[in-house]
Amino acid sequence: MSHNTYGHLFRVTTWGESHGPALGCVIDGVPPRIPLTEADIQPFLDKRRPGQSRHTTQRREADQVRILSGVFEDPETGEQVTTGTPISLIIENTDQRSKDYGEIKDRYRPGHADYTYEAKYGIRDYRGGGRQSARETAARVAAGAIARKVIGGIKVRGALVQVGPHKIDRANWDWDETARNDFWCPDAKAAKLWESYLDEVRKAGSSCGAVIEVAAEGVPAGLGAPIYAKLDTEIAAALMSINAVKGVEIGNGFEAASLSGEENADEMRMEEGKPSFLTNHAGGILGGISTGQDVIARFAVKPTSSILTPRRSVTRKGEEVDVRTKGRHDPCVGIRAVPVGEAMMACVLADHLLRHRGQVGGL
Amino acid sequence: MSHNTYGHLFRVTTWGESHGPALGCVIDGVPPRIPLTEADIQPFLDKRRPGQSRHTTQRREADQVRILSGVFEDPETGEQVTTGTPISLIIENTDQRSKDYGEIKDRYRPGHADYTYEAKYGIRDYRGGGRQSARETAARVAAGAIARKVIGGIKVRGALVQVGPHKIDRANWDWDETARNDFWCPDAKAAKLWESYLDEVRKAGSSCGAVIEVAAEGVPAGLGAPIYAKLDTEIAAALMSINAVKGVEIGNGFEAASLSGEENADEMRMEEGKPSFLTNHAGGILGGISTGQDVIARFAVKPTSSILTPRRSVTRKGEEVDVRTKGRHDPCVGIRAVPVGEAMMACVLADHLLRHRGQVGGL
Amino acid sequence: MSHNTYGHLFRVTTWGESHGPALGCVIDGVPPRIPLTEADIQPFLDKRRPGQSRHTTQRREADQVRILSGVFEDPETGEQVTTGTPISLIIENTDQRSKDYGEIKDRYRPGHADYTYEAKYGIRDYRGGGRQSARETAARVAAGAIARKVIGGIKVRGALVQVGPHKIDRANWDWDETARNDFWCPDAKAAKLWESYLDEVRKAGSSCGAVIEVAAEGVPAGLGAPIYAKLDTEIAAALMSINAVKGVEIGNGFEAASLSGEENADEMRMEEGKPSFLTNHAGGILGGISTGQDVIARFAVKPTSSILTPRRSVTRKGEEVDVRTKGRHDPCVGIRAVPVGEAMMACVLADHLLRHRGQVGGL
Amino acid sequence: MSHNTYGHLFRVTTWGESHGPALGCVIDGVPPRIPLTEADIQPFLDKRRPGQSRHTTQRREADQVRILSGVFEDPETGEQVTTGTPISLIIENTDQRSKDYGEIKDRYRPGHADYTYEAKYGIRDYRGGGRQSARETAARVAAGAIARKVIGGIKVRGALVQVGPHKIDRANWDWDETARNDFWCPDAKAAKLWESYLDEVRKAGSSCGAVIEVAAEGVPAGLGAPIYAKLDTEIAAALMSINAVKGVEIGNGFEAASLSGEENADEMRMEEGKPSFLTNHAGGILGGISTGQDVIARFAVKPTSSILTPRRSVTRKGEEVDVRTKGRHDPCVGIRAVPVGEAMMACVLADHLLRHRGQVGGL
Repeated sequence: MSHNTYGHLFRVTTWGESHGPALGCVIDGVPPRIPLTEADIQPFLDKRRPGQSRHTTQRREADQVRILSGVFEDPETGEQVTTGTPISLIIENTDQRSKDYGEIKDRYRPGHADYTYEAKYGIRDYRGGGRQSARETAARVAAGAIARKVIGGIKVRGALVQVGPHKIDRANWDWDETARNDFWCPDAKAAKLWESYLDEVRKAGSSCGAVIEVAAEGVPAGLGAPIYAKLDTEIAAALMSINAVKGVEIGNGFEAASLSGEENADEMRMEEGKPSFLTNHAGGILGGISTGQDVIARFAVKPTSSILTPRRSVTRKGEEVDVRTKGRHDPCVGIRAVPVGEAMMACVLADHLLRHRGQVGGL
Repeated sequence: MSHNTYGHLFRVTTWGESHGPALGCVIDGVPPRIPLTEADIQPFLDKRRPGQSRHTTQRREADQVRILSGVFEDPETGEQVTTGTPISLIIENTDQRSKDYGEIKDRYRPGHADYTYEAKYGIRDYRGGGRQSARETAARVAAGAIARKVIGGIKVRGALVQVGPHKIDRANWDWDETARNDFWCPDAKAAKLWESYLDEVRKAGSSCGAVIEVAAEGVPAGLGAPIYAKLDTEIAAALMSINAVKGVEIGNGFEAASLSGEENADEMRMEEGKPSFLTNHAGGILGGISTGQDVIARFAVKPTSSILTPRRSVTRKGEEVDVRTKGRHDPCVGIRAVPVGEAMMACVLADHLLRHRGQVGGL
Repeated sequence: MSHNTYGHLFRVTTWGESHGPALGCVIDGVPPRIPLTEADIQPFLDKRRPGQSRHTTQRREADQVRILSGVFEDPETGEQVTTGTPISLIIENTDQRSKDYGEIKDRYRPGHADYTYEAKYGIRDYRGGGRQSARETAARVAAGAIARKVIGGIKVRGALVQVGPHKIDRANWDWDETARNDFWCPDAKAAKLWESYLDEVRKAGSSCGAVIEVAAEGVPAGLGAPIYAKLDTEIAAALMSINAVKGVEIGNGFEAASLSGEENADEMRMEEGKPSFLTNHAGGILGGISTGQDVIARFAVKPTSSILTPRRSVTRKGEEVDVRTKGRHDPCVGIRAVPVGEAMMACVLADHLLRHRGQVGGL
Repeated sequence: MSHNTYGHLFRVTTWGESHGPALGCVIDGVPPRIPLTEADIQPFLDKRRPGQSRHTTQRREADQVRILSGVFEDPETGEQVTTGTPISLIIENTDQRSKDYGEIKDRYRPGHADYTYEAKYGIRDYRGGGRQSARETAARVAAGAIARKVIGGIKVRGALVQVGPHKIDRANWDWDETARNDFWCPDAKAAKLWESYLDEVRKAGSSCGAVIEVAAEGVPAGLGAPIYAKLDTEIAAALMSINAVKGVEIGNGFEAASLSGEENADEMRMEEGKPSFLTNHAGGILGGISTGQDVIARFAVKPTSSILTPRRSVTRKGEEVDVRTKGRHDPCVGIRAVPVGEAMMACVLADHLLRHRGQVGGL
């Protein structure tokens, strides 16, 4: 990871600001001859797109992706496939309302990166948050769609497991349920509760945080590496690199601190002639290497900082002011973080799959 | 991060197994003419060294570090200083008891990386855990001592804030207290409780997890970068790369999910002519860039997997067995993780300080 | 360097094929608040653009560059400047004649990378050479224009010093002359000769090679690094990464092999109170670090492989055929390599300038 | 490549100064279960070792290598093999005569990196050249021995093809001859001539340059990558990173500039059902990817800068002085560069082999 690039062999470089002409990414290192068209990417962008329910921002972006390079017709099948050269994706920004930025131009919005960008660079593109906008995650989701093609049989799914203080009841977990509500919530009952909770939050001009869980099924044992390139290290980094994320955990996570060694260690037995684990407290990773079980990660998203209640702040020139954010905002930005978390997990696995094949050979 | 290397400009590469002849690291990219002798590094190794209280493993290692390259006498002062070339550090393994490994050679210890290393590489050095041993962290601590020299005025300190289910009372926080008990615990009362709790755990042949908090004071505003190289991303990666760590959070962390936007956003006012924050829920980082406040991170360490209670497992050959770990082990490996967490934080900051200077100029 | 990315702190990632919708690059790590508009880049693209004299390919591309991200109005000056975030550049391909590729689709053109791309990837975009086309260098030239802004006072200039077997007479060297002929030739007399020589080559449907020299003036002493990151290492890599380049040398280069130590070592004296070299056989680099003199590199470009004379080859299916390349081609692709060589030198220096500042501080 | 690290998947980090306690390297990313003991490495170090003929420096170093990590007994064969974890190699410096450095301490030796190291770092280890000493190449040779194990069937051999102005006659090329003379010269007649030539050079207290050719046989078609990671780019970088190298070329190299397209392009025909090239002007690489032919590279080594004839120079304090280098020196450092060039070629191929396997799968 360096600057705006993620990955070693499967490498994603993202670029673009919220209100510039476009945003996009370059994905380098993709294996050749994988079928790929815009139709493989667009559904994931649609899933992330705002304005699909009353619970997300009403900004409307088509988020139409175009592939600019790295694909061509397969010499045998005639199908459009990857060529092994870099894949450039572009998404034009269509809903850049020409609004008056006079107010936020010189003010640091509390909880936002306005002040820190200026402390670092002496300048920031203040239109819609510029580079710090959650819009950047569209590029990640697009890259994730390609990563999914690379990891083939591995299935990556995400779910919202907490909204504000309200956690799901894990006993009710049903993956199918995630497609039936506006929150990717696997617990129908919790979804119901969140609906009214979020309506209140929105009406109050307030906001709330969330926790997302991402699971990867079908990960072969042996993926990852010891020490700095541990699979959990890279998942943690990938998830923490998403806007507004403040915590990451693998398997039992922070909960593990309270357990005894007897409770926490996953016992093994033989099953159908192969070593098999009886539990998965480890979240599918031991010593930085996958166990063959589901890889499970969770991440916490802080409450949206754009709220109606006035908060104390200062201006570029050192004046003390009150800042109050009007306009279209996600009251719970964590909802739309679900497809982003999935995308990052897919990118990590794609990179590690290629790295493993490089060092050790086929998995 | 790649394989066994951490960092971009301040780069640390570690090597070595628990029971090989030695372990060590190479630190590349260190600025020149920084005073450096073994005496600058040894105290941090001594802090991490086992066998200093009854609460840690009784393995006794001198952990004596030697600098093999990258230092020379300063042309002006005559003092030994860095030269800008790679600094190679070596620590010999002195307590490699020639014991009989027959028992664990073919068995996968539950909770350990025995199975996954073999799944990946088809081989593992089983003596004392080989590369997966916590001994590798000695190299990190040594590197961290050099990182501290690079970050100069920034003060990095760690504390144990939870042992098993027992958290400290933050109202009692006293940094000075961390030097007075065996746990780097900032709450004298909690330390007292932990003592008896750990005695029980140890006597039961059991183990427990822990949570460590690391704080960096004096970090200037502007360190870090947006997107994949966010300061919190790299802290998360660095801490998650430590053995047995399963969760990482910045500032409010997972707690933030339960808060409202009003509660979570840190308000600002002017203080002595400079922007100043009234609270620090963000843990000193906004949008991946430091705010100038203390940078605060926490990480969870799972309970030591080496326990006396027999656990079900399998062998390389597919036989079902019960595994019970005898010998010298930390009942709470989280205790000795405190100096390791500090070291990783120092390395992240050193790397980002140099990277910031590279792109933007002096801070 | 990895895949399609060049550089560590000043990082360029290029993408695009000759006949896809567009090509471009992402430049990451650029210092903030450097004035930058398309007008800073376009002149260098115009210099590289084909079809400007009868000696280069008649393909006509507007090569109009657009900046898609990473710039904004400066808070003080109102000028458009860099923001420190990635700069995405795009150049649309406008002259993609829809021609019949039936002939080259299945044939390996001798001297081209048709066969090797297929050996590696099992597929290639055969339209106009796809990714192997010299068109990719437009992205490098655009990146180089930004690198020039980063290196400020350092002046990077290139000249053609040999065409086919005809070398310039270095005694006639006049930088101003390079702007007066079609070849960036610093020797008016040689340019005259090349003109008639190239007319013959073109009429014969043949092609010829060339040697380019690039000089960087105003490089401060101290740039570069020992061992793998030597300044000459990275210049060699950067120049060798240009299409059709088969050799690179620094200063005396291969000539140095024939000299004695007395002849080759550059002696020093004091001049205006500063160490000064009496000659520059070393090409401005000693031990991988700049001496403060002009940095001088040369690279050899092989003759264009697209020629009218039929050459023996084979097809994808293993048939033996004769291949003859019709259409618009540079008889001496080395001519247009001059601005590309300059761009690569500028990128290397920009990267090393930032890296030096990172490790050591301001230069 | 960054600082003192070479490679992406097969990564070598070297460290150490000429007169420090030791030097060495860490090799990361080596595939597991490759048989490896010191006996696999030592012969290559012995080949590079000084003091083996009157034509090289009389400094006597045992250059005994020790493996400190990354190997263990294979679970099946009991043989010592790689484990997939980093391999740390150390070579102690035994012949560090405690001599008086008073004279060179403050003087910049012409042609050496004394001045530039100080310009960069403000300090240098002047004992025996410190980090700029050719002794560093011992670490490369050791790493190269491991790279050879990784590339298996690929045979890498080097030969000296020019000493001072005296080139070999390629018609006399006989690889077996390289083992029979002191110069790795493939032309018995040239070796004879060089012997007397070098005796003269040595007696005169002078020195001379050399050109080395390295050939890799058995490289499969498809290795390498387009653009910045071209196989020739990385060979150029790897060879240029060796001390005193000032030029690198692939295949025809600079000669190609003088050829016509007809002469230079290698024609193809089918042979035993496979595409086959009739010539190898390209040096086994087209478009950055290997053709399946021998990969051929050459590099020029400048004359040793340490000569008896006094040369004009200056001191740290700005005094003008004459410098004359006494002591044990290679009159032609290019001789011992042969095994170093081989090692670097092996490292490049090992890295690209793993990278290819990562992106595309088995070769």
